[in-house]
Formats: sequence, C-alpha cells, structure tokens
Amino acid sequence: MRDFSNDHHWLSINTATVRKQRGIEVPLDRIIDQCAERGIRAIAPWRDQVMAAGLDKTAKQLKAHGIGLSGYCRGGFYPAPDAAGLKAALDDNRRAIDEAKTLDAPCVVLVVGGLPGALEGKVAYRDIGRARGEVFDGIAASLEYAREVGMPLAIEPLHPMQAADRACINTLEHALDICDELDPQQTGMLGVALDIYHVWWDPKLEQQTARAGKQRLLAYHLCDWRTPTRDLLTDRAMMGDGVVELKKVRGWVEAAGFEGFCEVEIFSSLDWWQRSGEETLDTCIERHRNCV
Amino acid sequence: MRDFSNDHHWLSINTATVRKQRGIEVPLDRIIDQCAERGIRAIAPWRDQVMAAGLDKTAKQLKAHGIGLSGYCRGGFYPAPDAAGLKAALDDNRRAIDEAKTLDAPCVVLVVGGLPGALEGKVAYRDIGRARGEVFDGIAASLEYAREVGMPLAIEPLHPMQAADRACINTLEHALDICDELDPQQTGMLGVALDIYHVWWDPKLEQQTARAGKQRLLAYHLCDWRTPTRDLLTDRAMMGDGVVELKKVRGWVEAAGFEGFCEVEIFSSLDWWQRSGEETLDTCIERHRNCV
Repeated sequence: MRDFSNDHHWLSINTATVRKQRGIEVPLDRIIDQCAERGIRAIAPWRDQVMAAGLDKTAKQLKAHGIGLSGYCRGGFYPAPDAAGLKAALDDNRRAIDEAKTLDAPCVVLVVGGLPGALEGKVAYRDIGRARGEVFDGIAASLEYAREVGMPLAIEPLHPMQAADRACINTLEHALDICDELDPQQTGMLGVALDIYHVWWDPKLEQQTARAGKQRLLAYHLCDWRTPTRDLLTDRAMMGDGVVELKKVRGWVEAAGFEGFCEVEIFSSLDWWQRSGEETLDTCIERHRNCV
Repeated sequence: MRDFSNDHHWLSINTATVRKQRGIEVPLDRIIDQCAERGIRAIAPWRDQVMAAGLDKTAKQLKAHGIGLSGYCRGGFYPAPDAAGLKAALDDNRRAIDEAKTLDAPCVVLVVGGLPGALEGKVAYRDIGRARGEVFDGIAASLEYAREVGMPLAIEPLHPMQAADRACINTLEHALDICDELDPQQTGMLGVALDIYHVWWDPKLEQQTARAGKQRLLAYHLCDWRTPTRDLLTDRAMMGDGVVELKKVRGWVEAAGFEGFCEVEIFSSLDWWQRSGEETLDTCIERHRNCV
C-alpha cells in the first residue's frame, strides 16, 4: 500500500468539494488556482463549472498549472420517459465525452440516472427494471463512441438511498456485471468509479473490488460517512470525521491494482461549504496524509 | 397472487405507523382499539409500547379483540464495545423472545444493530466487519434459545443508509447467507423480514426473494419510498404515494410462497404522524386494497 504520510502526491480534489466557499458559489478558475497554490496535482471538475468557466480556457489554465484530471464529472442520466428523451441523453453524453477529451481526462464518470422525473419529485414511471434497461442500452451506445475517440467510461454505483433519483446502479457487483457484458475483453474502456461513500456498507465490497481489478478500477473517490447523516445528498463528512475504515478500503483497492489518484468529493451544505476554500483544501491535504 | 381489492383481511398495522397521532404519542391500548374498530386482524407492536401498556394486559386485550400479531418489534442490536455489552444484548433478546411468546407472535423481528455508539454519534469502533461478526454470533446464541421455546427469528435487512447506526445487515442476500449457515435445515426457526422500504432498490431482490422461499419469508413489511426523501429514518411514504412497484414485489413474495400478513410500517414525522390515527388507519385500509 502506498505511503501517503509525507506528501499529497496522489490527492485529487473533486471540485464539488469547494464549489461553495463560505456559502457562496466559487468559479472554477479560482478553485484551480487554489489547488495550484497547494501543489495539488489533479482535480475532477464538474461539467457545469467547466461550461461556466469556458472549456478551452479551463484546458489552458490546467495545462499552465500542470494540473491533470482524475476524472470528468459527469455523464449518465440515461433513463427518460420517451424516445426523444433517450436520444437527448445520448447526445449529451457524447458532448461530455468530447469535453473530457479536450481536458485530457482519464475517464468520464457516469452517474447513470434513476427513475425519470424523480429528481423533480414526479416520476414518469416507477419501473426501476425499465430504468436499468435504459441505462444498460445508454452505456452501450456511449461506449461505442467512447471507444472511437479513446475515452474510458467509469460507471459510479451510487448509494441505494439515491436509487430513485440519481442512479439505479447501486452496487459494485451490478456495475461490474454490466462491464462484463459490454466489455468482456476488459479493454480498459469501461470500468467503475469506486466512491467509498456510496459502497462502504456493502458486505461484498472487498470481494467485488478484487473482481474489478486494475482494468476496471478507473477512479477512486472518498470522503466519510457521518453519524447522524442529516441529508441524503449533501451531508458527507471529511475523511476521518466519519465511521468508514478508509485505510482498509484503500488497501483493498490497491491490492486490486489501483495506482491512481484518491479523489476527495465532499458535498457538505451544513459544514465544509460554509468554510473558506483554503481551510477545506488544507484539511483535505492533512487528512489525505493521516486518514486516507 | 391474492386479491386484496375487496377486503383488508391480510392487512397488519405495525404500531409505529400510528404511535404518534396529531404529533402526540398514543398509548398502545388506544391503538389496538382503533385497529379493532376497523376490523384489522393483526398488528406488530413495539416493545417499548408493550412495556408501557403492560405485557399481560396487552395480551388480554389482543385476545379479547381477536387480534393477532404479524411480528414482534424487535430484537437485535447485538454489537457492543465489550463483553458485558454483548452479554446484555443477548439477555435482552432472550426477554424479547419471552415477551413474543406471551403475545403469541409468529416471530421476533431482528434489527441487528450497527456500529456500537453510532446512534449516539460516537462509535466505539469503526470495523463493520467486526460488527457483522458480533451480529452473527448474537443471532446464533438467540437462535439456540428461540429453538428451545419455539419462537422464530426474522432477520430484517435495513436500508444501507442505516448500516452504521441500526443494522449492518443490508441486503436480503446477506441475511439469507446467515440463515443458510445457522439453519441449513430450513427449520422455519430462522428467516427474514422483508421490508420493501429497505430492499426495493436491490437489483437482486427478485432472485433473493425466490431463494428465501416460504420457509424463510417470515414477515413482509411495506410502505413506500418518497421522492425527495427528507430524512433517513422518518420520511416513509404511504403506499401509493412513492415510487416503489408494490404489486410487483408482492407478486414475487407470494410466488415464493408467502401467504401471511402485509404489515404496514410507516415512520413519518412530517406527514402521517401529524394526522389523526383514524385518517392514517383508514388510508392504510384503502391503499391496502388499491395499491398493495
């Protein structure tokens, strides 16, 4: 297992972690500067932030700072109530793949979507099996384009509490079943983003991480699970402040062959998003050395 | 599949559903009377309510009304930081089994517990594997006594969002693995309580329900999943108001051989616990006919 105690060489910051600072939305170029000032070598930016900052401008700024990507957030959201919606989702994923190429990302992270309309509190249908079928077909279609341009896709299983509204793939096992079906040759073009927040509870986590192996483990995200958790989306904890055995899980991930960045992704409307970006980033660096 | 459209013969009320009425805690004897007035044939009472009302008095009242139990809530909470705590949990489960006998319950439902101290926001340890080991040993010990007195134990997998603080068994598959190990003969003394709220998201739900079969399906709980869900514990929806395919899942459960009560268990601090018990119970009856 890699020794992180002396530096933060393998730390990446998912920009959602500092997208709000002291409660206020911060533009991506400022976040990139803050990371550069701290010698952070990688980030995972969100599409809406990149669009707001400008794609080419962001690519240039990253290059100037020597900052790479640990992933691009995000594609997915495939299910839709009708054919037009399904096609729009495929088109959008194609654009996400193109943007990821421009930013030289190692992968596009797929949050696959759940029941269409659930995010707005009004589902178009209730059949989660249908949603899973649409996700499968959507990934298959995106993968075809991804192979053409050489951009790996990383399916991110989300926590089951987000099955209805954000992603109906909720276990590593399910994600890997899809990978095996769509990419049996393990080309490296389809894999998973293992986010410890979403899968820490899974009794099959160690087994399925080993199954994933180096070829399928395209990204590794982390934060911590707070007790009590006060919100289903935005109450993630800083590493070390929750109940997850972070080092044990990283041990499994590295034993499976993963050698990439540890990407910190903390949604925290009540805590970290209320603090300064400097404090949040400095704490990420410190915890990366001590707790991850 | 049984036809529920003409009566509520197979409806049971978990008393948590109406434990608060118009925001105020209601004693169990009142709840039992309210159920009796509506021809509800079964309930699942909680231990604290039974203790407050008196065990023998409750047994007599139920008998007088001809109301049976669909389960007794609840045993479990096995993990503890030390040997004294582990022993105290076993003793407590023994008492729960005795109470269930007095009430002539068909099973004791086990909410197995998570990381000790997590409910209070301060875990004694973080090793969920250790907690799972303590749960396994605890069930094994309880099962020995349960066999002696003839009281089946039903392991209830809770939603993964409650893995840290309430139950570290979170899938039907995991629960059934334990059943197979501790009761390979399928004696009917160890099985599962399938609560649709906790497991609806599971891509293996149909498969594992079939695996459980008649011998392992000891209880069937339901409500619905609200979008958005505003609280991890007490924001369950009334059947029909959420996104779960209730009839489809009941079809799977009955295809596996289950013929018992459909137990409604709704924790709803923001909605149903603010209404009158009459309205809540009448709605349960109506939805049982139309949506379950």
